[in-house]
Amino acid sequence: MNIEEYVFSLGQKAKAAASTMAKLDTTAKNQALLAIADELIANQEEILVVNEKEVETAQRAGLKSSFIERLTLNPERIGGIVEGLREIVRLEDPVGNVEKMWRRPNGLEIGQVRTPLGVVAMIYEARPNVTVDAAALCLKTGNAVLLRGGSEALKTNEVLVEVMRKALNRTTVPQDAVQLVASTEREAAVTLMKMREYVDILIPRGGAGLIKTVVNNAQVPVIETGVGNCHLYVDVNAQLETAIKLVINAKTQRPAVCNALETLLVHQEIAPSFLPRCGEELRHAGVEIRGCPLTRSYLPWAEKATATDWATEYLDLVLAVKVVPDFAAAVAHINQYGTGHSESILTTDYATARRFLQEVDAAAVYVNASTRFTDGYEFGLGAELGISTQKLHARGPMGLQALTTIKYIIYGDGQIRK
Amino acid sequence: MNIEEYVFSLGQKAKAAASTMAKLDTTAKNQALLAIADELIANQEEILVVNEKEVETAQRAGLKSSFIERLTLNPERIGGIVEGLREIVRLEDPVGNVEKMWRRPNGLEIGQVRTPLGVVAMIYEARPNVTVDAAALCLKTGNAVLLRGGSEALKTNEVLVEVMRKALNRTTVPQDAVQLVASTEREAAVTLMKMREYVDILIPRGGAGLIKTVVNNAQVPVIETGVGNCHLYVDVNAQLETAIKLVINAKTQRPAVCNALETLLVHQEIAPSFLPRCGEELRHAGVEIRGCPLTRSYLPWAEKATATDWATEYLDLVLAVKVVPDFAAAVAHINQYGTGHSESILTTDYATARRFLQEVDAAAVYVNASTRFTDGYEFGLGAELGISTQKLHARGPMGLQALTTIKYIIYGDGQIRK
Repeated sequence: MNIEEYVFSLGQKAKAAASTMAKLDTTAKNQALLAIADELIANQEEILVVNEKEVETAQRAGLKSSFIERLTLNPERIGGIVEGLREIVRLEDPVGNVEKMWRRPNGLEIGQVRTPLGVVAMIYEARPNVTVDAAALCLKTGNAVLLRGGSEALKTNEVLVEVMRKALNRTTVPQDAVQLVASTEREAAVTLMKMREYVDILIPRGGAGLIKTVVNNAQVPVIETGVGNCHLYVDVNAQLETAIKLVINAKTQRPAVCNALETLLVHQEIAPSFLPRCGEELRHAGVEIRGCPLTRSYLPWAEKATATDWATEYLDLVLAVKVVPDFAAAVAHINQYGTGHSESILTTDYATARRFLQEVDAAAVYVNASTRFTDGYEFGLGAELGISTQKLHARGPMGLQALTTIKYIIYGDGQIRK
Repeated sequence: MNIEEYVFSLGQKAKAAASTMAKLDTTAKNQALLAIADELIANQEEILVVNEKEVETAQRAGLKSSFIERLTLNPERIGGIVEGLREIVRLEDPVGNVEKMWRRPNGLEIGQVRTPLGVVAMIYEARPNVTVDAAALCLKTGNAVLLRGGSEALKTNEVLVEVMRKALNRTTVPQDAVQLVASTEREAAVTLMKMREYVDILIPRGGAGLIKTVVNNAQVPVIETGVGNCHLYVDVNAQLETAIKLVINAKTQRPAVCNALETLLVHQEIAPSFLPRCGEELRHAGVEIRGCPLTRSYLPWAEKATATDWATEYLDLVLAVKVVPDFAAAVAHINQYGTGHSESILTTDYATARRFLQEVDAAAVYVNASTRFTDGYEFGLGAELGISTQKLHARGPMGLQALTTIKYIIYGDGQIRK
């Protein structure tokens, strides 16, 4: 069996499992999630041994520390994964909800019922926690999942999926609802992207390069996640203390994540009072600044920003800073360079706040808050599969509902069309 | 300027227009729609002259009558288009609706507001009415639209778009909110499919070949519409009279449309009483039958069905008929060969009806009604852009809401993430 045949065989099994999954009630799905949680705890030792070897290999290969950190499992992380499963059990199951139902003049009763998508494929990087999280969200919503993680985590993913499938074997959820694409060949990923017969939706999760490859090659429907070139605009009327506090938080609280601040825009009239103070605090926090000429007139120690800085998601303690002549220039800059993730304005002016909320085109638009809140838990939506930065189907944190679709159900008693 | 540059220049203008459109209130958009209606009436003569020439060319080229029929405009059709515009004026504008808003423990107020998609591209066949309908739906929802119709209607589309833009010139809606891709080269369509910088969503509308080409080549997000290999399953408990009436209606009321019946499935136990009678009525209505061996044992005059018949959308007075051993076989057949459009069961049994609604995977699933109702107006949803047969974003009739997305708006007063 070649790689393409192998991936197709997984797809076929996933589709069969999906049709069983669609009929299961919430109790059955929750029991499967709890069984997985128990099985992960019971097999923790084995999982950690396998993962440790992969971490060592990655270290020997000289992969950078942020990569190693994401690859690494430990008892605490497994505890977190298990707690995540239990949280997903507690979330409401959207499947089966009839959101609207109405009667037509001819007596037809038409309703919209929420149903699973079917087969969800995920392509992601070497982050073993995603393997369990994604499987759990898909199971809860009655979908079958095909997981294709980064090659450096292959062995860890293999053991995790084996453990999950072992758990499913004791439940009414079919084992093939969770399958790993256990090939790190590019052809395996490409097959997943083109397998329209079996894949209802493909979600790439990872860096800009991964997402671009998927978007350019996929023939199956895709939901993009995650690239966040996020801005914070300090308006002429901003409160200085609040503004400084929010800039520091958005940039430094966790710089490696997609909702961290990447470019600071400052109104030219507030720049003289704001930039020197904010710049000092940023420098104190270890942040490297790449500034426009006006910024550097206030912060002579800052590096020169080039055109690419405005388009860069640093995911690091680096910040691009630009002084803009007015509100319109700030919005134009954001709509030109932003990736449609999270954008914030700091202002005390009512009309300006309102215009920003309306004119900025992004998944999450803030007034007077850090961009770091764009997250399923922080929004109060619960566990999520990623942040969608596209406009179709789901935008912003993608929780359980994003893994479902609707179906029209029509009750008649012999109606024909005239 | 080569074709690619030309299409990119349209895209750039569309994007600029879209950002203006997003700020317009409903009154401004409705005024533009009414202006277009008036201008179409005022220019009816010119439009009909241009269209008549294209119809003649198509006739000389020997194109088939259903094609010619769709290409043709006349005073009555223009009246219908104008009436359609006035109906869209009366529909509720979804843009700006805050569907939910809630407060988080830290005081953040988070809402979901409905916003335009941005730039909508349409690729469709030689149907001039689609040119105006699509433009109107996009304008109402605050989007800019790029229209690429079939080459045989190019001149008609040119005059229609010219008239619409002339009307917009008297309103606050920018002219570039409606643009025609006035090139019939394949490269123009391909550029539209790849122009991620400017196109937020691409909707192909037409036959299976057009849709497949778009899905396989597009890098922009796509919503598939329309291919309907629809089934009607006559269960063992069906009421004979109702079943016959519904089969005739679903097959013959308008055979060229996507929600017309293409394959009839009959439970083996009802076949002896149902098929001879229904077959006679179908024959009387001029329907050619392609049957499985069991079907032909009841209807010896029927043609033999081959494997391709089960997968064919005839769009004509042809019907595939298969006798199935039981309910499960009917559902399996539908889920294998159906295109996820409209599927119906005829039964008097409660549990069977319920299972069919749950187990059949399609945009619209009916009990005891003709499949011909899958349509925005028939569902009571108003004007639509097509029937989505995919599961992302919109499923079933795509009305105004399908042309919008949501944006999270977050009101804070200095919140930082801990």
